[in-house]
Amino acid sequence: MAEDKSPPAFEQISTLLARGKFVRARELLHAMDPADVAHLLESSPSKARLSLWQLVDPDQEGDILDELSEDVQRGILKLMDADKVAAATEGMETDDLAYVLRGLPDEVYRKVLKAMDAQDRSRLEQVLSYADDTAGAIMNTDTITLRPDVTVDVVMRYLRRKGELPKGTDSLYVVNKADKLVGEVPLSVLVTASPTDKVKEVMDHEPEPVHYNMPETEVAQLFARYDWYSAPVVDDEGHLLGRITVDDVVDIIREDASHSMMSMAGLDDEEDTFAPVLKSTQKRTIWLGINLLTALAAAAVSNLFEDTLAKLATLAVLMTIVPSMGGIAGSQTLTLVIRGMALGHIGTQNSRFLFTKEMAIGLLNGLIWAGLIALIVGLWKQDWELSGIIAFAMGINLIAAAAAGVTVPLVMKKFSIDPALAGGVVLTTVTDVVGLFAFLGSATLLMT
Amino acid sequence: MAEDKSPPAFEQISTLLARGKFVRARELLHAMDPADVAHLLESSPSKARLSLWQLVDPDQEGDILDELSEDVQRGILKLMDADKVAAATEGMETDDLAYVLRGLPDEVYRKVLKAMDAQDRSRLEQVLSYADDTAGAIMNTDTITLRPDVTVDVVMRYLRRKGELPKGTDSLYVVNKADKLVGEVPLSVLVTASPTDKVKEVMDHEPEPVHYNMPETEVAQLFARYDWYSAPVVDDEGHLLGRITVDDVVDIIREDASHSMMSMAGLDDEEDTFAPVLKSTQKRTIWLGINLLTALAAAAVSNLFEDTLAKLATLAVLMTIVPSMGGIAGSQTLTLVIRGMALGHIGTQNSRFLFTKEMAIGLLNGLIWAGLIALIVGLWKQDWELSGIIAFAMGINLIAAAAAGVTVPLVMKKFSIDPALAGGVVLTTVTDVVGLFAFLGSATLLMT
Repeated sequence: MAEDKSPPAFEQISTLLARGKFVRARELLHAMDPADVAHLLESSPSKARLSLWQLVDPDQEGDILDELSEDVQRGILKLMDADKVAAATEGMETDDLAYVLRGLPDEVYRKVLKAMDAQDRSRLEQVLSYADDTAGAIMNTDTITLRPDVTVDVVMRYLRRKGELPKGTDSLYVVNKADKLVGEVPLSVLVTASPTDKVKEVMDHEPEPVHYNMPETEVAQLFARYDWYSAPVVDDEGHLLGRITVDDVVDIIREDASHSMMSMAGLDDEEDTFAPVLKSTQKRTIWLGINLLTALAAAAVSNLFEDTLAKLATLAVLMTIVPSMGGIAGSQTLTLVIRGMALGHIGTQNSRFLFTKEMAIGLLNGLIWAGLIALIVGLWKQDWELSGIIAFAMGINLIAAAAAGVTVPLVMKKFSIDPALAGGVVLTTVTDVVGLFAFLGSATLLMT
Repeated sequence: MAEDKSPPAFEQISTLLARGKFVRARELLHAMDPADVAHLLESSPSKARLSLWQLVDPDQEGDILDELSEDVQRGILKLMDADKVAAATEGMETDDLAYVLRGLPDEVYRKVLKAMDAQDRSRLEQVLSYADDTAGAIMNTDTITLRPDVTVDVVMRYLRRKGELPKGTDSLYVVNKADKLVGEVPLSVLVTASPTDKVKEVMDHEPEPVHYNMPETEVAQLFARYDWYSAPVVDDEGHLLGRITVDDVVDIIREDASHSMMSMAGLDDEEDTFAPVLKSTQKRTIWLGINLLTALAAAAVSNLFEDTLAKLATLAVLMTIVPSMGGIAGSQTLTLVIRGMALGHIGTQNSRFLFTKEMAIGLLNGLIWAGLIALIVGLWKQDWELSGIIAFAMGINLIAAAAAGVTVPLVMKKFSIDPALAGGVVLTTVTDVVGLFAFLGSATLLMT
């Protein structure tokens, strides 16, 4: 059962380590699946992680490295010299190796390349030449290609001679003499075809290749939309360069999702849960600094109304309510728009509709919550003028929140700023400033 | 090229609809891939969506329904009668059909079941009998099984006679006479095996089945960790029930990610970007209501210090800074912990380490930002007593934020509350209340 394969309790190995029983711990680690060892490393405090790494099976090092997140992987690579890295990464798939190498310091990187044999190096250099985060960078070059005129029987004999197919092969690609992709034969078609059929009679004549320069997130969207297991990669002229497999796409989808969520909290997306304290603090500081600036901006707005606040302390008690509601309503809209953009649902054509819709929701929300807060404040403070003022501010701010929630991410995207990262801060600055101005400003005009 | 397959611009079809050119719009729609039609529907305002649905190819209805998100799918199903649903869903894979049926009103659901042929119905009823969101509910029952003693040649002849394999077949399963799973033959192994080999000689003797009752998110974690393309599903005794394919897992991963992100903003995870205004407003109201309660709680705390605020309006100007910083620092910790839990990195053993680590970060953050805010307030307001007070409150609140950021999600998980949904509200309530008490309380003690 797969459940039984989940990593042996962290405790078991850490207890062994604590008791100095390294031999037993090493045995346990060697018996584990590389993916499980990687999971164990990710789940360990940074110091324990390095002691664990000393004990892993050298033959598994490459596979384990490949499964680690960037931060954890780099922490470990830093401790290895070039020869060890070269040995550990022997036999890795090209795309995975390229991923590991991109994390190395230049000097080690060059040494590792030197330590490889010529053919591997040239294949690897090709993958490394593609821009990071594109189809080219995540593809494997070990495709099996067929000619259209051979028979299924010949193909089967060729495959039997080969003995083993590259990992994750679910389709064979058909190329013409110029190496251009002309078709695709899924293994499931191959095994049901008659031996005397020619490849061109059974192949899918309209393979759907991706261009090597397509951003990996777009590749992932295509895989998700069309339920692909693999896809061929081609250049401008349609020459077959390699193939992308769904296991790498799954990683991209998980990383993208993690990225959005972490960005919205101002965390670096690769942040390692168990990184050392100083490193984590440093990474989070920028965000807290930016937030301090926005909090000071809000304080500066309140400061303009210090005289009003001195006369009416009740305003001080109530003044946080309107900005708070604006922030929540705005970030609901913001999150919806960010997700819609990530799913590819929002384009120029329907963004006007979306704006109108969210404004209508903002207006409706404005009416609902203005009414409710008017009632609450009126009953609580027995002051119906104040009640009217806070209701007015609430209405204005919820409409402003809706407008900012749609506009901020769309504008940011136009300027290539990641709205998941910066959208929240800009949005709450808007709702804080508008909320405070509307509330304290109208109170100053009407009550003092 | 796959890029060219992206849905024809929304404008093109909507222009045709606006001009009343339904015939041309229908032709365009019929020529599109069902996945693209689904994408177009998801990207359309809710009214346009229903006009579009009238025009889609009846033969594609099932495939399109299957690709839609729950909200959009239900909106459309509501308009169809049972016969139409039965016709549209003919030939769908069992797991996909079960997904669609779960969204139907009881009455329609029974009619659809009745309209099916007996064999399909019994297969479907089996899938429907598994709990939603488990391996059983997402599996297909159309596996191809082999006996261990037959030769590869016999298998190949059997497959050729069959003519076509079920969609997404990448492995054949080997069962004994009691229908218990004993092995697995990937197609990539089958095509390289010698025709005279027996199945038991080439099969993987340690297939890794999942239990039908495993939650789908755990299934997705296994697929991601071990780079699976498909996995067999078994019951308690190891009988083969069906198989799960990676395309469904990709959907689960995307939904889970979307769920966390949307939950953190208090949005229903299936919320349709283009839902009607009233429906959207209604869905967001609960969250705004909860937030109003927490904002009122914060106001009630400030209210305790109304006398102090009346004497010192400067306090009112500055009092939002400390809660705001606490909220941000706390949600950084919260997000990190929620993601760590989602990735399965956080267990009982390392949660104490995590707590200690986050407390250390909180302390360090407390020192940094207390120092900085002391300096800013001291210079701005020329009041070093006030400066000391706000620094003290900042320090306390950042430590409280770290403690709440780790504790809140861990405790919620123990009580089976989704921390992505409710964590943020509880956290900001803590940081608001602690921040205001620390700041206004110490100011009251020392300055009045």
